[in-house]
Amino acid sequence: MTNAPSALDIARKLVQCPSVTPEEGGALAYLDTLLSPVGFQVHRPVFSESGTPDVENLFAKLSHGKGPHLVFAGHTDVVPTGDEGLWTLPPFSGEVKEGMLYGRGTADMKGGIAAFSAAVLQYLAEHGEPEGSISFLITGDEEGPATNGTVKLLQWAADKGEHFSDAIVGEPTNPDAMGDAIKIGRRGSLSGTITVTGHQGHVAYPHLAHNPVTIMAQIVSKISAAVLDHGTDHFQPTNLEFISIDVGNEAWNLIPKKATARFNVRHNDLWDAQKLSDFVMKNAKDCIPSSDFDVTLGLIPSNADAFLTRSDTLIQSFSESVKKITGRTPEHSTDGGTSDARFIKNYCPVIEFGLVGKTMHMIDEHIAVDDLKTLTDIYYDFLMRYFPPKG
Amino acid sequence: MTNAPSALDIARKLVQCPSVTPEEGGALAYLDTLLSPVGFQVHRPVFSESGTPDVENLFAKLSHGKGPHLVFAGHTDVVPTGDEGLWTLPPFSGEVKEGMLYGRGTADMKGGIAAFSAAVLQYLAEHGEPEGSISFLITGDEEGPATNGTVKLLQWAADKGEHFSDAIVGEPTNPDAMGDAIKIGRRGSLSGTITVTGHQGHVAYPHLAHNPVTIMAQIVSKISAAVLDHGTDHFQPTNLEFISIDVGNEAWNLIPKKATARFNVRHNDLWDAQKLSDFVMKNAKDCIPSSDFDVTLGLIPSNADAFLTRSDTLIQSFSESVKKITGRTPEHSTDGGTSDARFIKNYCPVIEFGLVGKTMHMIDEHIAVDDLKTLTDIYYDFLMRYFPPKG
Ligand SMILES: [Zn+2]
Ligand SMILES: [Zn+2]
Repeated sequence: MTNAPSALDIARKLVQCPSVTPEEGGALAYLDTLLSPVGFQVHRPVFSESGTPDVENLFAKLSHGKGPHLVFAGHTDVVPTGDEGLWTLPPFSGEVKEGMLYGRGTADMKGGIAAFSAAVLQYLAEHGEPEGSISFLITGDEEGPATNGTVKLLQWAADKGEHFSDAIVGEPTNPDAMGDAIKIGRRGSLSGTITVTGHQGHVAYPHLAHNPVTIMAQIVSKISAAVLDHGTDHFQPTNLEFISIDVGNEAWNLIPKKATARFNVRHNDLWDAQKLSDFVMKNAKDCIPSSDFDVTLGLIPSNADAFLTRSDTLIQSFSESVKKITGRTPEHSTDGGTSDARFIKNYCPVIEFGLVGKTMHMIDEHIAVDDLKTLTDIYYDFLMRYFPPKG
Repeated sequence: MTNAPSALDIARKLVQCPSVTPEEGGALAYLDTLLSPVGFQVHRPVFSESGTPDVENLFAKLSHGKGPHLVFAGHTDVVPTGDEGLWTLPPFSGEVKEGMLYGRGTADMKGGIAAFSAAVLQYLAEHGEPEGSISFLITGDEEGPATNGTVKLLQWAADKGEHFSDAIVGEPTNPDAMGDAIKIGRRGSLSGTITVTGHQGHVAYPHLAHNPVTIMAQIVSKISAAVLDHGTDHFQPTNLEFISIDVGNEAWNLIPKKATARFNVRHNDLWDAQKLSDFVMKNAKDCIPSSDFDVTLGLIPSNADAFLTRSDTLIQSFSESVKKITGRTPEHSTDGGTSDARFIKNYCPVIEFGLVGKTMHMIDEHIAVDDLKTLTDIYYDFLMRYFPPKG
């Protein structure tokens, strides 16, 4: 056995740091005191950009020999607590009740960081430094604008000459129970605005006007009814939602000149921004009855193409660890929202696996203490496969 | 022949009064000086209501014996000039160029008031007082909120014990040339707001939300595509225009809870507010796929039911005057926007006939001096039919 602190000890310490974005809250400083003594080189770069708050980040690396470089990525910042009076236990108390650790960030994702830290400490205590490198890439700006977080931290590390072999993101990927799912990619996300321009006029003389509202309604109906695809091996069907239609006509007797509709697509690997843009425009133009109307499409620049982890080795090896510890075969999932994995995937293969996410961002966010132990065991088992101990 | 001022003289004087709503600008005072000397009792009631500017109005009556009471209704207020620098001649100069009288209000509708005044003065000069009553019911609040204008003036007159037999409104009813059209009624106008309520949610998890935007687009498409009717004897087909759809969702990743659409209907005598409301709700409900969505309809209270002039005698007699003077048989029209005739129709049969409206409300509003003479002759001929001179 080992004297290293348990995942529960670490998780409680982290939860007690009130690190609501963009506050560091003591969480990164605590990780520094945890990792430095066992040989990690800890860096605490602060990134800034005008119009956004400065954000603290942490990069900690333990390097030994020429083996692969495994990076664990995550965030210590948390979303606001909401009304603290509604919590069963204070959100930053880190108290356990009936086998559950309560607190903001327990699931998303201080628990994940605690489990990986505990697993690494256990490995080091039992087997010494592995043949290769282990890094923690931890940001304080994932829940906020994400401007001064992972994107800049990855670039900062690349500028220092760091190369990563594989990455694990510790976001809560299990919908209901440990072993449900590993995320092996993410759907893409694309947002855009359709604008239809007609000709303004008085409602009493509709033949002298060209009403863009009616055309826009047809465009939204047509595109919403379209089936974009039926899903692919690892992805759900692509889904497009119109999230707003706005005209802003204050008068009752005027046919307006212009109508806009805004949409967001969560798409699989059959699509990219160009294909989606072509699809939307083709359908929109099909609804334009004459040259009296004009339709344009504006896309919001995003960094969220669909992606699928390129390394089957990483996926298989991690799946085996999950199966060994939980007895369950995890789904290889790509659904749900976006995470910082979308940035990391540009540097190395990345998977996501963490705790049960059911209560994340909610009042009374909590995790099972048993799950925290299970996650630690999974990470430890994976470390043992990734860095087989000598002898 | 007569020494009474010509319609052109009167029109120029009126145009020179800068009576942009709600300013009286001297226009009513001028009419007072024109009508008082020939025997009219002139009243100048001012109406007010909190939140709206006070407005001056004029009621002038010439009464002799027991014959019918003919009322001429109109307004001296005008819409703003727009950029005066764009006018060929200054908008309040009342100057004539190449047979055209230029100026704001020439067509809408100082020219009409001038023509009726000139016709009355000519009648009085040639035949003396008619057997009956002639009134001018002139407001300074037709182009504005119309709160302190015709509605209150009619009520004020009714409270004084006035009864009207027939009314002529001098709005510009001829689209292109004198004799085109008499308005013998007006379409109704109804405005309303449809609200669809669904369930808010994250775009990444659309199965947990119910998107009201898509439903609203279907409702707008369905209702816009519907044929309400094919018109009636004297009315165009009913037309419904959606003038706005608004959601106001500022986020890109949220399916909103609510969407609203606003519409205006210009309808014929087959419809009233209740029937239209039923029609809209039936179609809207047809688009609601489940009880996860709710749809409501709010109507804007209005005073604008469709109406048709009840007096064939008035219509026929006036049509004969138009035909005699112009050689053309005027269309009996009910199209176009609303006018104060919608209020007058509650008191007596009303028709509308005035100048050519082509340039009304525009830069370089103007009328042909010949048209002004033609209109005066028509009004005079009608007065001769309505009040046959003795002997
Ligand atoms: Zn997270
Ligand atoms: Zn008018």
